[in-house]
Amino acid sequence: MKKIAIAIHGGAGTIAPHLLTPALEKAYLEGLNNALDAGYAVLKNIGSATEAVAKAVMSLEDHPLFNAGKGAVFNHIGGHEMDAAIMQGVDLKAGAACGVPSIKNPILLAKAIMEHSEHVMMASDGALTFAKQHGIAIEDDAYFYTEQRYNQWQAIKDSEKFQLDHTETNGEKKFGTVGAVALDQFGNLAAATSTGGMTNKKYGRIGDSPVIGAGTYANNATCAVSCTGHGELFLRSVVAYDISCLMAYKNLTLKEACDLVVYDKLVKIGGEGGLVALDHFGNIEMPFNSEGMYRAKINLNGERDVKIYK
Amino acid sequence: MKKIAIAIHGGAGTIAPHLLTPALEKAYLEGLNNALDAGYAVLKNIGSATEAVAKAVMSLEDHPLFNAGKGAVFNHIGGHEMDAAIMQGVDLKAGAACGVPSIKNPILLAKAIMEHSEHVMMASDGALTFAKQHGIAIEDDAYFYTEQRYNQWQAIKDSEKFQLDHTETNGEKKFGTVGAVALDQFGNLAAATSTGGMTNKKYGRIGDSPVIGAGTYANNATCAVSCTGHGELFLRSVVAYDISCLMAYKNLTLKEACDLVVYDKLVKIGGEGGLVALDHFGNIEMPFNSEGMYRAKINLNGERDVKIYK
Repeated sequence: MKKIAIAIHGGAGTIAPHLLTPALEKAYLEGLNNALDAGYAVLKNIGSATEAVAKAVMSLEDHPLFNAGKGAVFNHIGGHEMDAAIMQGVDLKAGAACGVPSIKNPILLAKAIMEHSEHVMMASDGALTFAKQHGIAIEDDAYFYTEQRYNQWQAIKDSEKFQLDHTETNGEKKFGTVGAVALDQFGNLAAATSTGGMTNKKYGRIGDSPVIGAGTYANNATCAVSCTGHGELFLRSVVAYDISCLMAYKNLTLKEACDLVVYDKLVKIGGEGGLVALDHFGNIEMPFNSEGMYRAKINLNGERDVKIYK
Repeated sequence: MKKIAIAIHGGAGTIAPHLLTPALEKAYLEGLNNALDAGYAVLKNIGSATEAVAKAVMSLEDHPLFNAGKGAVFNHIGGHEMDAAIMQGVDLKAGAACGVPSIKNPILLAKAIMEHSEHVMMASDGALTFAKQHGIAIEDDAYFYTEQRYNQWQAIKDSEKFQLDHTETNGEKKFGTVGAVALDQFGNLAAATSTGGMTNKKYGRIGDSPVIGAGTYANNATCAVSCTGHGELFLRSVVAYDISCLMAYKNLTLKEACDLVVYDKLVKIGGEGGLVALDHFGNIEMPFNSEGMYRAKINLNGERDVKIYK
């Protein structure tokens, strides 16, 4: 059997430890395990890394506890604007959708953009039109309603606040994003990221998640990366491609590159968050400089690890 | 007098040489000279690189011959969706707007996002709302109408064509973008890019121009870069940040980094286009692998150079 590996995250914005009841912890870990299984099953069945990251992210999008797809946060008018991106390392093909409403699984839209269009990035209503033409599942507002997200929005909707600052709302911090990286039996890498963005967000704000090079990047020559964190600072730091360049141009290992970016460069500018990364040897890194990061992996030896805090 | 320098481009999508009448050539060169003067005047008056690139790009946006602001191409429903980004090297602050209608000078919206919001990137109607709240000038459809762009759209609007392929429409190829890079007396770099995108574009397509790291990037430690070309391939290649990383991590000179990216890496994947770049020493590079690129510069010695073809 050839080398396969996968790592996923459910966001660096974890719930405060004192609010994590045993039942809630179980639900989070179950969600992570299910997503990990969905992606790993693809890899075991000789599927592609692209398919594996898409399946893992879909599973997290379908889970109401994670801020993507069902469970996406409310924007300032009570709607949902979602972002997603996917990239495959074999040919550097990529697809991204930003600010799209109504898409059940935004990662499938990003994948369709990559596979069935000549474009990389599509936004808002135009992206929705493309989705409809390509049979991507659409859901009504009721599907995206979750009581937890609604209450988070209600708590701040009449303020100018959006969850970019470091306040907590109902004990949960802001960085709700999901993502996955995988290495398949053909030696190909892929990365995928999906998010509902920030509660009460305005102005069609786009973070790093759907931006190739910032929140999402994959290149067989180096690594696959999916980020979660303070999107603006991740965007300005071109985080995912920075890790790839540190490996390609400075000969750093994946661990050295991840440590430099997450624990040094990002910390210096106040860039809270983390990422999951996987190199072409199958090494996995899941660094974060926040209190916690929902994360899980199955390494080259088939060993599973699922964690929330440090 | 301290070192100042500026370089601008009006797109790598030049008109076919045999269609360039003397009158039209004069108009293009005049437009480039005016934009260069607008940016250079800021630098001479001890203004910032940020202000200089914004002024140079505004001048090109106001000129109907260039595909940005007035003169922006028509999308598939006869509207205009514009993209712009600005970044300053002193603190890596950045602002970007994508898919916005009605903004007279999209670069001023990008600058306002950088200076007056906690965000980096805003899209479509949300970005327009932010513009209105910050007094950014809005124009009606009549302002954006130019006969040349209308005819280009009419020629292909009933087809599935958009100008991503290598067809010419009325003798003009596709890569209509404007941009500028500058070095001010304080040693600070900045980059700005603005575009109307592709004629007959659909689906809210976004190219590399408003993507920090892809079409636009600036960092005092390395360089400022503004790109123009086949947006999808520039996005997947994270072109602007790649040049910065080649300098920072591989110790290449600006020229070596630009040559590697534009004449080797992009050519290998069919990525037609070019860029203007400026390093912290004031060296200017304006490489392109297309037939021509509208471009102009004033170097450290105050020498001016304005060109269209090789």
